[in-house]
Amino acid sequence: MEQIAKGVWKAVLGEPEELTPVYFREGSIRSEALESMGEANLPEALSRLHYEVTVRGITVTISMSTTEDIYGFGLQLKSLNQAGRKRRIRVNSDPPADTGESHAPAPFYVSSAGYGLFADTFRYADFYMGTSVRKGVSADKREVNQKHEEFSESALYAFKRTSEEREIIIDIPGAKGITLYFFAGNISEAVRRYNLFSGGGCLMPMWGLGVWYRIYGGSDQVKALSLAEEFRREQIPVSVLGLEPGWHSHSYSCTYQWSSMFPDPDRMTGELRSKGYQVNLWEHAFVYPAAEFYDDLLPYSGSYEVWNGLVPDFADPSACEIFGGYHEKNFIEKGIGGFKLDECDNSDYNPSNWSFPDSTSFPSGMDGEQMHNAIGVLYQKLLNRLYRKHGKRTASQVRSSGALVAPYPFFLYSDLYGHRDFIRGMASAGFSGLLWSPEVRSCVSGEDLLRRVETVVFSPQALLNCWRIPNPPWKQVDTAKNLADEWMENSEYYTEVCRRYLSLRMSLLPYLYSAYMEYYLTGRPPVRALVMDYEKEERAAQIDSEYLFGDSLLVCPLTLEDGTERTIWLPEGRWHSFFTGEILEGGREYTIHADYDEIPVYVKDGALLPLAQPVPYVDENTVFQVRIRSYGSGEGSFILYEDDFTGLAAEKGDYNTLTVTRDQAGKITWKREGKEPERYQIAGLWKEGAADGEM
Amino acid sequence: MEQIAKGVWKAVLGEPEELTPVYFREGSIRSEALESMGEANLPEALSRLHYEVTVRGITVTISMSTTEDIYGFGLQLKSLNQAGRKRRIRVNSDPPADTGESHAPAPFYVSSAGYGLFADTFRYADFYMGTSVRKGVSADKREVNQKHEEFSESALYAFKRTSEEREIIIDIPGAKGITLYFFAGNISEAVRRYNLFSGGGCLMPMWGLGVWYRIYGGSDQVKALSLAEEFRREQIPVSVLGLEPGWHSHSYSCTYQWSSMFPDPDRMTGELRSKGYQVNLWEHAFVYPAAEFYDDLLPYSGSYEVWNGLVPDFADPSACEIFGGYHEKNFIEKGIGGFKLDECDNSDYNPSNWSFPDSTSFPSGMDGEQMHNAIGVLYQKLLNRLYRKHGKRTASQVRSSGALVAPYPFFLYSDLYGHRDFIRGMASAGFSGLLWSPEVRSCVSGEDLLRRVETVVFSPQALLNCWRIPNPPWKQVDTAKNLADEWMENSEYYTEVCRRYLSLRMSLLPYLYSAYMEYYLTGRPPVRALVMDYEKEERAAQIDSEYLFGDSLLVCPLTLEDGTERTIWLPEGRWHSFFTGEILEGGREYTIHADYDEIPVYVKDGALLPLAQPVPYVDENTVFQVRIRSYGSGEGSFILYEDDFTGLAAEKGDYNTLTVTRDQAGKITWKREGKEPERYQIAGLWKEGAADGEM
Repeated sequence: MEQIAKGVWKAVLGEPEELTPVYFREGSIRSEALESMGEANLPEALSRLHYEVTVRGITVTISMSTTEDIYGFGLQLKSLNQAGRKRRIRVNSDPPADTGESHAPAPFYVSSAGYGLFADTFRYADFYMGTSVRKGVSADKREVNQKHEEFSESALYAFKRTSEEREIIIDIPGAKGITLYFFAGNISEAVRRYNLFSGGGCLMPMWGLGVWYRIYGGSDQVKALSLAEEFRREQIPVSVLGLEPGWHSHSYSCTYQWSSMFPDPDRMTGELRSKGYQVNLWEHAFVYPAAEFYDDLLPYSGSYEVWNGLVPDFADPSACEIFGGYHEKNFIEKGIGGFKLDECDNSDYNPSNWSFPDSTSFPSGMDGEQMHNAIGVLYQKLLNRLYRKHGKRTASQVRSSGALVAPYPFFLYSDLYGHRDFIRGMASAGFSGLLWSPEVRSCVSGEDLLRRVETVVFSPQALLNCWRIPNPPWKQVDTAKNLADEWMENSEYYTEVCRRYLSLRMSLLPYLYSAYMEYYLTGRPPVRALVMDYEKEERAAQIDSEYLFGDSLLVCPLTLEDGTERTIWLPEGRWHSFFTGEILEGGREYTIHADYDEIPVYVKDGALLPLAQPVPYVDENTVFQVRIRSYGSGEGSFILYEDDFTGLAAEKGDYNTLTVTRDQAGKITWKREGKEPERYQIAGLWKEGAADGEM
Repeated sequence: MEQIAKGVWKAVLGEPEELTPVYFREGSIRSEALESMGEANLPEALSRLHYEVTVRGITVTISMSTTEDIYGFGLQLKSLNQAGRKRRIRVNSDPPADTGESHAPAPFYVSSAGYGLFADTFRYADFYMGTSVRKGVSADKREVNQKHEEFSESALYAFKRTSEEREIIIDIPGAKGITLYFFAGNISEAVRRYNLFSGGGCLMPMWGLGVWYRIYGGSDQVKALSLAEEFRREQIPVSVLGLEPGWHSHSYSCTYQWSSMFPDPDRMTGELRSKGYQVNLWEHAFVYPAAEFYDDLLPYSGSYEVWNGLVPDFADPSACEIFGGYHEKNFIEKGIGGFKLDECDNSDYNPSNWSFPDSTSFPSGMDGEQMHNAIGVLYQKLLNRLYRKHGKRTASQVRSSGALVAPYPFFLYSDLYGHRDFIRGMASAGFSGLLWSPEVRSCVSGEDLLRRVETVVFSPQALLNCWRIPNPPWKQVDTAKNLADEWMENSEYYTEVCRRYLSLRMSLLPYLYSAYMEYYLTGRPPVRALVMDYEKEERAAQIDSEYLFGDSLLVCPLTLEDGTERTIWLPEGRWHSFFTGEILEGGREYTIHADYDEIPVYVKDGALLPLAQPVPYVDENTVFQVRIRSYGSGEGSFILYEDDFTGLAAEKGDYNTLTVTRDQAGKITWKREGKEPERYQIAGLWKEGAADGEM
């Protein structure tokens, strides 16, 4: 094992492939930040690592104790703690079961034994996390004639945390070698080191943290503008307006040319920008024959079509130049703020299996298997570079992702839609450098809408995806009635509650921007599982229905199925209800009531929380009016970051820090350092336990 | 391509593996039967076959027209026609989606283009059946600005039978070569040739076609005997009594030793046999340390344990000798009629992933991936050989199966339980030499029970699996109440209907035995999809809720969800209702009513149908009293087969044929040929359209 940075080691086993996540990594390892994390060692167990290369591929085994907890593997919607489970790292769009597959599985895990492991491959690797023991280990078992009364499947199949030493097996068919990277430290530290190894967390533009709204797929230019007007008129804060497939003259596969429904796209974009909107364009990577660059791309695409379109080889510089150059000239230079890459995952669970075969060959030398795990990642890299070339950050969306993606300001979304699973994704995705969006799409009722809006407001991306309905869902959730312009009975009530929550999102922007800046600076994810901050508390190991939102907020969403009551668990210490100020003592469970328009959110004792006067959108001139809420007593601090909110200067250190401090006596002061223009005006303070409405 | 038998060709591509289904095939290719099928040619398209060996494995491509229909791939519970789908040939226990995985996927398909293809591997092969086209094929498409009104996922993802030439891709990661076998002919002929290539259909003992009942897992010896007594007393015909895990002194994994609940197993077996029961024992292949042969097996087992038990290497002769020898001495020689091998599939979809890893190594040289697809097959081969060694047929059960299994008298079952899916399995499994059992397990209501019993009576195996309830389900379907000896309100009615249907199964035995004998002689499956007999009728291509049962019966089961009405489709010609005699003209759909105690079954016009006086069980002395039902007019015939019903003499031609003939004038006669004892006494005739009750 070779140490390649403070707390990071590398082991080359066999003959690794060339085209891997590290090969395509954006930027370089953030050595300084790693250095500042200090010394760290790997657990002794890793010295007992073995590997074998067979006709099938390479297999690595690592010993594991049955008491170990395991997290990571990218987006995992069906489970959080992976001890005793097999994880298949294969991108897929609609996996119905808990196999490890998802829109963004990653060959990275962290163990409570004190390390993280990344296997540098785009292949379909299988990770067996203590499912198995070597033969003979149980040879001394002799218990017989136990009582047979009833036989339940769940008892038969339960994962037993028995005393045998188990194994982690990393099985990578098709590879003759693998490079492993190890990250020392507890769960939080190992995750940070992985993210810093990836290049650090992304720089997110402030506008990307505002409210996103994807409009009806059948909208034309007039309707798009009129909806944009409606939001401003009705004081619904929306920062990003997303266009769905209908903007293309052909969408499955894509032409990347405006359809006849958008006769004057430049004027439309200009008008939207002047109203404070960023414009986001839906697309997929599959290039229809009528696309302008089809012929150019033909030699730099995979050997099979998808929906009659070419699959660009994003591992090949020529393909990137053709696809990227077109996007640069036609969209980025014309003010389009970002894209949404759809259908870029795999389709093993879709009845039509629409995607390219695993056996597809690409000019770069990649095959279809690798490209399925890579295409979403390589697209992010390409688009991110194009925006950076113009000195800008993008905030975009992508439906597949994978390894080492922390530096990309892309939100990951899903075609699946279980609200409970979406909440679990908030806890799971943060282990692997992913920004998960539990988008609001369709809703069975107004109550369902409220529950989903509450969650999305406390998530990495506050997105409403209304591609099937021409009017906002708070007017009507039923698709047919929405199409017929018929409103729900209580649409005014739903509108008011949604407006309130979306405005709250805008109030949270300074707080959230700091969380993202910390992600950039230290690798610490802005939204994460409780176990990342509270690893020493046993209960935290399994909590997947609550999560941390920034440094001070703990969120416990309810789903429609929960009704108005749920059980929550709070870590040791005092917790303040964000909305009511009520104080709860942690280290225990509570059963709490929350009406459909309420979401339980708790503030950590000692926190200083900046809240802004809501603005309808954010642009380069926005200056936030901020008030500070102080929770509890004793010394405390919070850093606000001021920069241009959209460019790359922050990477060179061109930002101010505005540090809010509470001293032992409870006195709160703030101090600005840096030479950048001021973006926050601190307008005042709250006392401990102040309620929301007082703002 | 090398012709290896009439209508069968072989192509060796690259360097195939050694341990394959053909390597382990039972018996040899049935050349004489293939010869008697006459000449046949392969379609020209197969001459355009290509293959490539890459670092991932071997990939074969074959051209395919979009109008082609594709069937096979072993048990497929989620779909019948595989055109436009990807099939993954990976044994798995609970696949929730339509991926091709099942308890018994097989790398074999038949195409309506006039051929069948078998890829001789136990690896996880992927078959892309026309999902994809090569890049550039669509290069001339230019349609843009189509109307965008609404976007539905189902429309986006639909398989389009468009005009492009598509491809079949056979992708076998991990293999450097593959031997392909081709079977000429229409769907029915190609299937028969595949089965004859496998060694021909199995010889099924007559008792295996009777009623099976698996008793409560918590039963002791006394309860087992008392239930056996109850069935005889209450005139419920049961031929096979199955014991569940509780008979083992330790069951997860297994000791293969009687538990303390069965203090005198030899006496119990003797008593059951004297009452006409065959005894079947549940087991799995995983050998617990307290098993007598654990130490002997240790060197001949896989490198990982399952549930503390060894995984025998059934590809190794020593493992077979140790495991098989123990079974022979302790069970087969003591009169046990068969086994049920549980948990022999894989567990990728089970949260605990209990099974052995794909990377497991076995002494024979097989790896875990191969063994997952092989273990059920190799177990069948071993057990079948042991019974044959003693001159006997077994009828047994197995939860995983695969390629070339037609010669094994094993019924395949599933832990899944969707009734609609179970009916589809009846249509799908027959393409690949599998005998699928839609077992009755739990039922949500008495109506559900009736619907499931109706289906199982018209299936390869009439099995009630009552492992969770001590009393028969017709007394109580609710588990908790059944455990408390509380009966359902209408238990007498349900008992009567179940008795009637199970008795009907016994009446059908001579008819069904002929269907199985024909399976043995000609490879034609006893239960099969309509498209196998009616390939020329377009509608038959998609029918997966009806199936053929023997040569003359078409079965259209209803499920609880159907209520009392369903749509049926009948092929061209006249069809006679089996129960009412009503005549329907085929070539069209009907919406029919069927009360919960009725199942729509239709007899083909022209058929001669032998029905027996029901007997409570079948043994070596049974002589059936048979009456012949004649349907329609014109010449017709039906052959009954007489032999010892249980031994191997039939393989040497030691059986009588009792041919029932109807001449042009409608006169019915029968004629016996052969020297074996008479097993059927033809007691009389029915007129056309006679109803069931008249028997």
